[in-house]
Amino acid sequence: MDYDVLIIGSGPGGYVAAIRSAQLGMKVAVVEKESVGGICLNWGCIPTKSLLKSSQAFEYAKHAADYGVKIDGDVTPDFKAMVKRSRDVAGGMSKGVQFLFKKNKVETLKGFGKLAGKNTVEVTDSSDKKKEYTAKHIILATGARSRELPNLKQDGKKIIGYREALSLDKFPESMVVVGSGAIGSEFAWFYHSIGVKVTLVEFMPTLVPNEDEEVAKQLERSFKKGKMKVMTSSTVENVDTSGKKCKVAIKTKKGEETVEADIVLSAVGISPNTENIGLEDAGVETEKGRVKVDEFYRTNVEGVYAIGDILAGPALAHVASAEGITCVEKIAGLDPDPIDYKNIPGCTYTSPEVSSVGLTEKQAKEEGYEVKVGKFPYSASGKASAAGQKEGFVKLVFDAKYGELLGAHMIGGNVTEMIAELVVAKKLEITGHELIKSIHPHPTMSEAIMEAAAAAYDEVIHI
Amino acid sequence: MDYDVLIIGSGPGGYVAAIRSAQLGMKVAVVEKESVGGICLNWGCIPTKSLLKSSQAFEYAKHAADYGVKIDGDVTPDFKAMVKRSRDVAGGMSKGVQFLFKKNKVETLKGFGKLAGKNTVEVTDSSDKKKEYTAKHIILATGARSRELPNLKQDGKKIIGYREALSLDKFPESMVVVGSGAIGSEFAWFYHSIGVKVTLVEFMPTLVPNEDEEVAKQLERSFKKGKMKVMTSSTVENVDTSGKKCKVAIKTKKGEETVEADIVLSAVGISPNTENIGLEDAGVETEKGRVKVDEFYRTNVEGVYAIGDILAGPALAHVASAEGITCVEKIAGLDPDPIDYKNIPGCTYTSPEVSSVGLTEKQAKEEGYEVKVGKFPYSASGKASAAGQKEGFVKLVFDAKYGELLGAHMIGGNVTEMIAELVVAKKLEITGHELIKSIHPHPTMSEAIMEAAAAAYDEVIHI
Repeated sequence: MDYDVLIIGSGPGGYVAAIRSAQLGMKVAVVEKESVGGICLNWGCIPTKSLLKSSQAFEYAKHAADYGVKIDGDVTPDFKAMVKRSRDVAGGMSKGVQFLFKKNKVETLKGFGKLAGKNTVEVTDSSDKKKEYTAKHIILATGARSRELPNLKQDGKKIIGYREALSLDKFPESMVVVGSGAIGSEFAWFYHSIGVKVTLVEFMPTLVPNEDEEVAKQLERSFKKGKMKVMTSSTVENVDTSGKKCKVAIKTKKGEETVEADIVLSAVGISPNTENIGLEDAGVETEKGRVKVDEFYRTNVEGVYAIGDILAGPALAHVASAEGITCVEKIAGLDPDPIDYKNIPGCTYTSPEVSSVGLTEKQAKEEGYEVKVGKFPYSASGKASAAGQKEGFVKLVFDAKYGELLGAHMIGGNVTEMIAELVVAKKLEITGHELIKSIHPHPTMSEAIMEAAAAAYDEVIHI
Repeated sequence: MDYDVLIIGSGPGGYVAAIRSAQLGMKVAVVEKESVGGICLNWGCIPTKSLLKSSQAFEYAKHAADYGVKIDGDVTPDFKAMVKRSRDVAGGMSKGVQFLFKKNKVETLKGFGKLAGKNTVEVTDSSDKKKEYTAKHIILATGARSRELPNLKQDGKKIIGYREALSLDKFPESMVVVGSGAIGSEFAWFYHSIGVKVTLVEFMPTLVPNEDEEVAKQLERSFKKGKMKVMTSSTVENVDTSGKKCKVAIKTKKGEETVEADIVLSAVGISPNTENIGLEDAGVETEKGRVKVDEFYRTNVEGVYAIGDILAGPALAHVASAEGITCVEKIAGLDPDPIDYKNIPGCTYTSPEVSSVGLTEKQAKEEGYEVKVGKFPYSASGKASAAGQKEGFVKLVFDAKYGELLGAHMIGGNVTEMIAELVVAKKLEITGHELIKSIHPHPTMSEAIMEAAAAAYDEVIHI
């Protein structure tokens, strides 16, 4: 055998699994057809956060006077520089992973990988040369791509996906963003904030439809307050790209409306990259297009594993990484606990930010819990006031019977950094009173967590 | 009796204790000689954070080009507007507490309060009229003030304390800040960042001397990189205020140096407000100038309690609040746990920010622990890169034997919001591996916590 572990795909699932394999003393290689680091690092998490930082800086500069900063002159977004910065950050991170591979003696096999018989992976390089490698354990970590709807065929110019949205060479005047999950909402916010006329279209009744309803409604209020056009319960029926501008026909509850825009960004979810990787010939079972695995990411075929976005479940970088680590720790003979999928945080890096973990209030009730809910508004937070970020709140859902934390839902400044506290709290099965009695530093926005817990038990001080 | 609970002082100890007392059904009043909310709200935590937000906005505007934001023209701090914003924020918060008092039926007795016999408090108002009130339980929450050193007598103009530093009517050209605890460091950073020539003088060998040494050294590097003059192991011997500028004689390891500055800010700690509040006549025991209490804040005199900065222990707003709540819950017949003083977070809102909880590496070793230490640098964090905040790190100290988290020490962006996670973790006696296996969202700076834990166990992925 050439390797102990051979991983197809070097995204946050694959590269993390590779490094952990090497740490555990296994000989490991990763097959990658593009840039090391995958979508997350090159075309997802990292470059979007870089753009969003630029828009944050732009917001500060635009509203400088509010903070006592005088600017004599115009403040304008330098779109090209923003994109360049974002590409540079992504490039730097990809180089970082290459460095980690070298340090950990992880080999990179450039090309497209597919299963090719027992313990065998065939790698086709860019000049179409094929080579086979063998490994005791093969991990599929091929990830996902932007999902294409028939009425939103991406041409990469007028109707685009997240990749193009990250590297437009021209500042568009107007944009329709279809889909308001994390990706759609973040791009809508970014482009809106730097002056693009954005229309955000969501099929479901609320934005960020996976989030708690109250959070979703607050985000909608915030977006609308900033003069973004938001259309919920609305469907894009058709896009006419024949003219200079796209004509986007949108069906709303009130009838049909046509919105004109330079660009339509499709952010209607993702499709797993399960094609042409040899699943069928190898006999790897799938369900609804996703690879089936057990709690340690073993497929039905011995020696073949799968992690990340090609599985059912949340398509999130941190989940893929955790799955990769769990998978290879099990392979190496350690005794890792299976991942608790009820304790996975999710973040949306708009302004205000959104984050959550666990059950929403509605889900908890549907699961039969009697709940105690506590909410604390940022308007009552001293730090939020000092920061000029009074929009938002923390909402916590507890089981009324045992006081266990079931879910946390937050919107406002810094909440993407604050959610980890609730992950740890939930992991250790914190009760409401233990959270109330955890002394949070003053003045921070994190105090809102303690206060929300106190609100659930009628002990809140500041409202 | 006029009241169940009568509290002298309406700072974060007193006002929080008052609201909680009212919640618990007790009749309560607060004696306050100045603005409701005390120092924290009016002259401490809140207005400083407001100024620091202004300096953050100024930093963004100054470095806008780094983020792809074009500013055609000059960026200058409007010092008066910054101070006005800060005063407005503080004023708003104080009104907020007044609102909470009204809502909770907490009475405010304007004037200076002192113990005046069994169950009695005498309140002297601004026109020197005295009135006595009786209460079953009297809580002393009189707080502290800026400490005065004999060679740094504050004249309020050239040699000032934190109050004057929050409301200077003129932008100083230069300033010597004496003392680099949280207050000194924050003011030094604020004034430095808006263009004042600041010299920060610290008696101890490192800045923020209560913090972990590595953190302190990083802060010093960051300050020096930004061209602030930092003098550690240095003492201000004498300030000559006779000329236009102050001449500050500073004794360093290398000899004496004179620094000229418009203003000298003394931030050498605080003195408890224990004078003239009737301690001696009532026979309340003190030790080294601090009131002695048991774990429920009972003094040796029945019916008299004390909380906050007049006690030994950390002089922090969140500690005072927690003490107030614990004190009145015990009075009301609840069964609160005593506060765990080993799990109190501390924050310094400089840039980079500093936060910590629990034992430093050095303290842990001194207490006889065999330690496992894990460190993760922001330079390896994707979110920190995207945010352009690569300075800083997370350092965690574990007990090698049982894996228990002993302390957390952080410096960098967002760490003041991130520290609450470790408070909760410590409260629930998390082990290193439980922290490693708590899935942190990507990309966030909070991932550095998970990675630092992994580093302690040689499982770190990204370094």
